[in-house]
Amino acid sequence: MAKIVQCVPNYSEGRDLKKIEKIVAPYKNKDGVKLLSCEPDADYNRTVVTLIGEPVAIAGAVVESAGIAAELIDMTVHSGEHSRMGALDVVPFIPIKEMEMSECVEMANKVGEALAVEHGIPVFLYEEAASRPERVNLAKVRKGQFEGMPEKLKDPEWKPDFGKAEIHPKAGVTAVGARMPLVAYNIDLDTSSIEVGKKIAAAIRHSGGGFRYIKAGAVETKGIIQVTMNITNYKKTSIYRVFETVKMEAKRYGVSVTGSEIVGLAPMEAFVESAEYYLGLYGFSTDKVLETHLMD
Amino acid sequence: MAKIVQCVPNYSEGRDLKKIEKIVAPYKNKDGVKLLSCEPDADYNRTVVTLIGEPVAIAGAVVESAGIAAELIDMTVHSGEHSRMGALDVVPFIPIKEMEMSECVEMANKVGEALAVEHGIPVFLYEEAASRPERVNLAKVRKGQFEGMPEKLKDPEWKPDFGKAEIHPKAGVTAVGARMPLVAYNIDLDTSSIEVGKKIAAAIRHSGGGFRYIKAGAVETKGIIQVTMNITNYKKTSIYRVFETVKMEAKRYGVSVTGSEIVGLAPMEAFVESAEYYLGLYGFSTDKVLETHLMD
Repeated sequence: MAKIVQCVPNYSEGRDLKKIEKIVAPYKNKDGVKLLSCEPDADYNRTVVTLIGEPVAIAGAVVESAGIAAELIDMTVHSGEHSRMGALDVVPFIPIKEMEMSECVEMANKVGEALAVEHGIPVFLYEEAASRPERVNLAKVRKGQFEGMPEKLKDPEWKPDFGKAEIHPKAGVTAVGARMPLVAYNIDLDTSSIEVGKKIAAAIRHSGGGFRYIKAGAVETKGIIQVTMNITNYKKTSIYRVFETVKMEAKRYGVSVTGSEIVGLAPMEAFVESAEYYLGLYGFSTDKVLETHLMD
Repeated sequence: MAKIVQCVPNYSEGRDLKKIEKIVAPYKNKDGVKLLSCEPDADYNRTVVTLIGEPVAIAGAVVESAGIAAELIDMTVHSGEHSRMGALDVVPFIPIKEMEMSECVEMANKVGEALAVEHGIPVFLYEEAASRPERVNLAKVRKGQFEGMPEKLKDPEWKPDFGKAEIHPKAGVTAVGARMPLVAYNIDLDTSSIEVGKKIAAAIRHSGGGFRYIKAGAVETKGIIQVTMNITNYKKTSIYRVFETVKMEAKRYGVSVTGSEIVGLAPMEAFVESAEYYLGLYGFSTDKVLETHLMD
């Protein structure tokens, strides 16, 4: 089976569409690389690109694109509402299919090293790829932003994982990491009480004593109350488990669950696990899905 | 979204692997065509090939392969245990993704016409593509086999849908059709009574008054009883509906359902529908599955 990785590089250019076009060119018409979306934001002055594909092809294309971004984006004149420290600001690798997190950590290391060696960009590794605990959180890594980086890199605590302890003059610093895919999931309640929604959200989320990989809140939308959540590791906190727990908890308030929705995209394995649970399927995997074999 | 069709051509050669290699060559290294399996059977003297891919590419490759089969296979000297009437004996087109049955019927017509025009092979359309009710059933179409076809074609009732009313001297006659994918599905019961299994199988199958698209029986396997079935149209008779009905029916005998299994491959939509049912998912489709976009 083919390994599939997702990659979501963020670039500090969201206004000049001609530059963006050149920066994403390495992701187009390339074997093993699929450009899912390219979303420039003028206020943020930032573009979020979503790629999926074969690990070696993705890694090569990201390094190539980083070189173009370093030529076309000048961070010394960059302004925008989003925190940033580099032309290619942040690059997470996300395991989608037949990949372990350790393989995404390895990709982050290889790409990080290449950015330093080939383009002279210092790199911090973050999240699952972090080399020390204080570098796990991206916000802490990026603190000080582009303007504060020259000073920050002088601190031995913030010696980059790859490259010299000085910024690339125009392209700044890049964070390269590995993380699980987020599943954005909402569950509808047939109540008009936001309080009930909030209590249920608190019961299921990590910070409230609930599941380890759930961040949840309650919102009123379309005249109903929705428990809205991010599942930050769907392999360890499964969709069906959250759904059944919300149903169980809602009973306490005499409230019913009327449905649920996935926002955006989620990996096939996330759904397959729910089918396995409810149908008691054994000997099952994504290999049993016909379309999987189109991706070999 | 890319349309995906499955195609399962059956060839009347299952012994000479060099010939089979040449016959399946048009399915290899071709954009839009994925050769999933090639299973020669020496006793049947027949090879079943499974393809998935893009409709135009698949249709072209099948017509090309049919020409090679007509050159390499001589039906006048063919023997084997399986009924057959042509070198390329039968070709069903099966809608997998973003395809209506009507589009598979159209493919069957185009490929059928091309086999007649390009290779001089008379063609019968069968199943969903059949031009008249008595041609729906492949067994009826093939009745008389290769040896009986010269006479059969003279009967105005059996004038081919494409081509002249005489066989191709070496390649005989080909049946081209359209049908739904089969889902082979088994449900385990915690009983040792085959009678209970048979009663449940009878309750769910079409011939027993059950679901329209279920063919089911009961078998003893690995020390348990299994209700074993083919779902001939998973869109109209869903996996979850059959599973829940077997659970409900098993209760009558004080028996529990302990699990289930999919045998072989099934289309993603078949699983997605179960996830939709159990999670009450709305606004859902295979487009929400990340991997779907690898196939565009």
